[in-house]
This record gives sequence, C-alpha cells and structure tokens, in this order.
Amino acid sequence: MSLKEAMQVVDLVINNVHVMTMSSTVDNAYGLIQDGLVAIHNQNIVWVGEQNQAPNFQAVETVNGQGKYLSPGLIDCHTHLVFAGNRANEFEQRLTGVSYEEIAKQGGGIISTVKATRAATEQELLDLAIKRATQLMSEGVTSLEIKSGYGLDTDTEIKMLKVARKVGEQLPINVKTTFLGAHAIPPEFKDNADGYIDLLVNETLPLVADLGLADAVDGFCENIGFSPIQMSKLFDKANTLNLPVKLHAEQLSDLSGAELVANYHGLSADHLEYLSDNSIKAMQQNNTVAVLLPGAFYTLSETKLPPINQLRQANVPIAIGSDYNPGSSPLCSLKLMLHMACTQFKLTPEETVLGVTKNAALALGLNNKGTIEQGQSADLCLWDIQHPAELAYTFGVNPLLTSWVEGKKISL
Amino acid sequence: MSLKEAMQVVDLVINNVHVMTMSSTVDNAYGLIQDGLVAIHNQNIVWVGEQNQAPNFQAVETVNGQGKYLSPGLIDCHTHLVFAGNRANEFEQRLTGVSYEEIAKQGGGIISTVKATRAATEQELLDLAIKRATQLMSEGVTSLEIKSGYGLDTDTEIKMLKVARKVGEQLPINVKTTFLGAHAIPPEFKDNADGYIDLLVNETLPLVADLGLADAVDGFCENIGFSPIQMSKLFDKANTLNLPVKLHAEQLSDLSGAELVANYHGLSADHLEYLSDNSIKAMQQNNTVAVLLPGAFYTLSETKLPPINQLRQANVPIAIGSDYNPGSSPLCSLKLMLHMACTQFKLTPEETVLGVTKNAALALGLNNKGTIEQGQSADLCLWDIQHPAELAYTFGVNPLLTSWVEGKKISL
Ligand SMILES: [Zn+2]
Ligand SMILES: [Zn+2]
Repeated sequence: MSLKEAMQVVDLVINNVHVMTMSSTVDNAYGLIQDGLVAIHNQNIVWVGEQNQAPNFQAVETVNGQGKYLSPGLIDCHTHLVFAGNRANEFEQRLTGVSYEEIAKQGGGIISTVKATRAATEQELLDLAIKRATQLMSEGVTSLEIKSGYGLDTDTEIKMLKVARKVGEQLPINVKTTFLGAHAIPPEFKDNADGYIDLLVNETLPLVADLGLADAVDGFCENIGFSPIQMSKLFDKANTLNLPVKLHAEQLSDLSGAELVANYHGLSADHLEYLSDNSIKAMQQNNTVAVLLPGAFYTLSETKLPPINQLRQANVPIAIGSDYNPGSSPLCSLKLMLHMACTQFKLTPEETVLGVTKNAALALGLNNKGTIEQGQSADLCLWDIQHPAELAYTFGVNPLLTSWVEGKKISL
Repeated sequence: MSLKEAMQVVDLVINNVHVMTMSSTVDNAYGLIQDGLVAIHNQNIVWVGEQNQAPNFQAVETVNGQGKYLSPGLIDCHTHLVFAGNRANEFEQRLTGVSYEEIAKQGGGIISTVKATRAATEQELLDLAIKRATQLMSEGVTSLEIKSGYGLDTDTEIKMLKVARKVGEQLPINVKTTFLGAHAIPPEFKDNADGYIDLLVNETLPLVADLGLADAVDGFCENIGFSPIQMSKLFDKANTLNLPVKLHAEQLSDLSGAELVANYHGLSADHLEYLSDNSIKAMQQNNTVAVLLPGAFYTLSETKLPPINQLRQANVPIAIGSDYNPGSSPLCSLKLMLHMACTQFKLTPEETVLGVTKNAALALGLNNKGTIEQGQSADLCLWDIQHPAELAYTFGVNPLLTSWVEGKKISL
C-alpha cells in the first residue's frame, strides 16, 4: 500500500471527542462513541468511530475536541418566527384581569399579529426574523422550520414565505418553509371558513407551489380553527402539488386530526395533548412523527399531557419544537424546550435530544441530517458539557463551543 | 443667572428614553416617565424627569436612548451560584425511573454537590461562578446575592463566601453574600442537627463574621432541614453579630418559619408556598420581603401556589429570585423568572419587574438601589423593547442594549 493510499485527505477532522451519534446502529444511550473522531469532506461526514480505529487522515483543519461532546446540529422543526407586532400589552392585560372577550374586541389575539404582519414590509419582517433565527443558532440550531400563517391573505402569506427563504439565504442555516395559510380564519372570511379554504386551494397554495416557496403544507385543526373535512381539501391539493403535509392537531380537543394527517402520509402531527389510540396507530403505520411543543403547554398552563407512554409503546418517533410564536409560546429557545420536555412531559434527556436531532429531521423530511453517521450532512455542535444529559438538565449558561453547518464553522 | 450657573456639569446624560423609575412617587405603572432624561454624576443619579423640563446639563458623555426604555439594573436576590459538580446524571436517572432512595444511596442529591464543592479549589469554584454571574449580567443583572451552603463545614463555607466576594471584585457587579451553613445536615452530623447548629453558632458563624465574609444569615427551615427552634439559635447569634437574617421557609410545609424570621426583623422569607396568614401578618409588621422562586416551583412541578393575593392585600413587598442551583432550579436566568412568575404565579408584569428591582433591593438591604430616583446608585439597563411588559412577556432574544453599574458602562 502506497503512502498515497494510506493517507485519506479530508477537509476537517474533529478528534478527542465523545460523539453523540444519535444513531440506533450504535448500541449506547445517545448512540455514544467515547473517545471518538469524526472526519468531514465536501460538506459531509465521511468517517465516524473510535479514534484509535480511525484511518490515517490528512486533514486541512483539525479541531481538538478536548474531551468534550459532539452532537448533530440541533433542529427546530416547528416555529412561527416570521411575524411583526408585539403582544406585550395584551399579555399584561390578561394578567391584570381583562377578559379574553374584551381583548378580542380590542383587536387582540392572533388577529393583532396578522394586522401587524400585513402592514410590515418584507425588510422589516426579515430584520426581526434574522434576530430570532440568530438567537436559535447561538444555541446550536443548524436547521429550522418556519411557517407562514400570519398573513391569511395570498400576498402576505407569500411575503412571509419569501422572508423565511431569505433567512436561509442570509444566515448559514438550513431553512424549511411551511405554508400555514390555514392557521386561522381571517376577518374577511368570518363565518365562512369554507370560503377561505376554497381561496387557499384554488389561489394561494397553487401560487405558493408555483413560486417554489413551500416545502410542506400545514393547518390548525380545531373547533376554533379548521375541521378535518376542510383540512382534507387542502391536503388533497397539496398532494396534487407534491407537497408533504403536517398538522397542528389535538391540542385542545380530539378531532382525529393526527389520524387524518397520518393517512396522508404526513410528515408530522404537532401538539397532540388529546391524541387518541386510533390516531397513534395511524401515525405508527405512516411514519408520522409526533412533534411535542412544551413551550405552548407551559405558557398556556395546560394540564392534559400528551400520551407519551402510548407513543413510546407504538414506537412513534417523538420530536420537540420551540413553537416560537408571539402568543402561546413567546420563548425563542430550543434549548429551554429540552428542559421543559423533561420537567413537564417527563421525557428522558435522551428522548429530548433525539427530539431535536434525528426525529426532528424526520419531521422535516431531512433525510441527511439529525445523526452523526457516514454520508450525513456535517451539521455538528461541540458542547462544553460533562454528560450528554446536561443539554436538557441545565439552562442559562450556553454550553455551545462551536457549531458547523455542512462542514463550515459558524461564527455569529 | 450666569452661564456657569445655568450649566450643570455631569458625567453622563441618557436622554430620549422612557424611564421605568419603579418609584411609587411617579403615579404611573412602572413609575413610567415618558420622554425622560436621566443625569448621572459621581456614580449616582442626580436628576430624573421629563426631558423638556431638564436643566441645562453639560455632560461628559451623552447617550441617546432612541425612544427605548430605561429601567433600574436588575437584582437577583436569591442564588446559590457558587458550587462544583454536575447533577446531569442524577437528572437523567430520575427521568428513567430510578427512585430517590436509590439516588440518595448512590450519594446523589445535595450531598453530591457538597462533596464536589468541598473537593474543588477556590479557583475552580471562582471560574464556574464567574461564568454564571456573567450570564446573569448579560441579561441586565447589576446586583446579585450569593449564598454559601454546599460546604456544611467551616472551611468550605468560608471558601464559598470568599469566592462569592471575589465574584464581586472581579466583575463589575454588586455582590451581597449570605451565610447558609444551615442549608442541610452534613453527613458528619447525621441524626444530630442540634450538634451541627451548635458548631455553626459557636465556630463557623463567628469566624465568618470576623472575616467580614457575610452580609446576611440564612437557613433551610423544613422537616427535612432545620426546625424553627434550631433556626432561632442561629438567628440569635446573627443578632449579636449585627448580621441581618433571611430564611428558606414554607416551601414544602408550614412550620411558621416566615413568622419566625419576620420576628427577627428579617430581610426576607423565601419560597412561601405554604405561607400562613399569621406569618403574612408578621412579615407585614416587620417589613420582611416575600421572595418568590418560580424556577424551583416549575422544576419541582409544584402545584400549591404561594398566597399571592393575601400578600398583595397585606402590602408585603414581593421579590423574584432565580434560586439558581444545581438541584431544584438549574436555570441560570433571572429574565426567564419574570415570564415564569407571570405564567405560573399570575403576577402582573409590573409586579415581576418590581420583584427584580425595588423589592429585590429591599430583600438585600440595598437602600440605594432598585429605583431610578435622585440620589440612587446609577445602576441602569437600556432595553430594546416597545412596552415595559415585554421584559416579562417574551424570552430568548436578549433585549438588553446597555447596562451601567454605578454609572460605569458594562462591557461583557
Ligand atoms: Zn404552531
Ligand atoms: Zn434557595
């Protein structure tokens, strides 16, 4: 064997790290490889394993991990981070005893966000979104889903999706966009949800698809939102446009929304506090991910827990999202969600890390992200921690040392 | 009037700001002065009011607040941020179903922190504490209380207090130290809490006082901690040493600890979920502050709320602390506590801001901090917010633009 064959040239080697591969092919909690090494070339992971078994790499750059932990880049698979306006005043009113009716009469609630988002320029929305995405990146987020849904008219929905795309262009982060026109019934269609769904099906969604602005289609299936029948009309259209679907389902009541979206081979059903056994079965059969949103659960002081044990027993993958939005989850932190998912849902720390890596990738249809395995995209985080569970256990002091997106080191 | 008389020379003017004075002398929510100006000289606030009524200041430096909000520097009046060790493993064990007994048998719980803290060098403890205090400062904290209590022997308690003092020397932040020798019963005094209290009274506390290491004396008054009779022995000693007292009281049960500490004219009673009407009356009569700790309430999934309405009716000042510690509140963020106090305790945003400014100052005996008034120390925060309630309403993107401690701009 010549020297040339023995030396494998790569862009980057990260050595002297404990590797949380999150891969089920490694038979340890967190798919952990102690004293590991990861080699990266052309944006991808080309080798991972124990350092003492590594080939003789010749790396352009070598990072000594100093015995710290390396994980896949974090993935926030459910956010509403493009919006304008501010609901601080309303937050204060609620806590000083003003009724929901009174706040709604004053134009509060989601409609106030819709009004502000419609009025905002694309640049204003982008400036706000960049700040929020940058905050998430500072915690280790390397992939991010962003939904529309504060326009509720064709122009503003498209404006929001353009902004979401620009976040992905202007920041070194992978963005998946989701069309959520069916987020709420707009004032123009009061008492005429069917009419609004017709608009989405016949005008907005085809245009969105034509412009290539959405990677998926979502809706809010509740008594105060859209019915399963209305959602299925939208999903049928999404099907014809080759767009995958997902759904806000079973947050406040059981409408079998999760079953519906699963039967469309949906990527995910999200929230799921009132999820039924039937829906779990449908999710299991269709590989639909259960996305849990502890920030909304906490902010709304919910008490009905999602059926965690049943999801576990059915082997439905569980992901965790921030659900960052100005109303029910004004918490722009995915890291905090790990702690909240443990504290409130009693998920294990390993389950929460899976929920923001491997399973969050599934929820977004990201086939090459979420684990540290050969061939995967080199989205990585190096953490100053002494135990993988520390990612969920403590919050405040940011343990992120370095992150890489597609092999490129991120500087914020 | 000569020009010289008309021009008042000052170090710093902050103009074009909405000033959250938090003073009861200004008859608005948050003591708000719209379009205000603050003048600072020799570390103190020398003028505050409406900009168009301001004297003709000649300032060495002028900061244009751009229409943003200025508040007093935040005060975290209850932390345990000097400690070593890591309880991530134990956190994970609890969530994977290992019993408390089993974890305790393995040396888990507070005793594991005690062991690690005893073993750590002063420099190791300081490095960790500096990181945590810096994190709090990045959110606008300008004054900070730090407790001992993970030594439970004379040497380590003194080591912890020295570290706490050094945090205040090495960082531009005001630190108040609290001797919490009576935090738990050390293994050496198992089944002999009285013997341990005797040690604290006769040896540890006098030495701590002699070295000038403590600004107050605290304890953990519970069935699993120390009895009111034991605490009163320690408080009697504190009295003779001219040290004010405070107490962890009524967190898990009602032992009338708050009444006890109030009757010693205590600065504060902290936790207070099981607080009785009698104790509230004693606190009212003795100006003892109620320090609420939403992080511990949340982490422990408590359901019994402190009697907020009764405290309001009795005009007992309510403060909010992070209680940052490695067990029951591993959340190193005072800003998050504002959101948690609103969400869980249903405090109003104004009450939470008072709780980390004016009332937190009272809880630490800081007479010249916590409000923006003439003569007060110039500890200030400039926030990129559109409404004062925003400080409590949202979390994640850090709205702090600039902070000043005693008139000096902080750079982190
Ligand atoms: Zn959502
Ligand atoms: Zn405490």
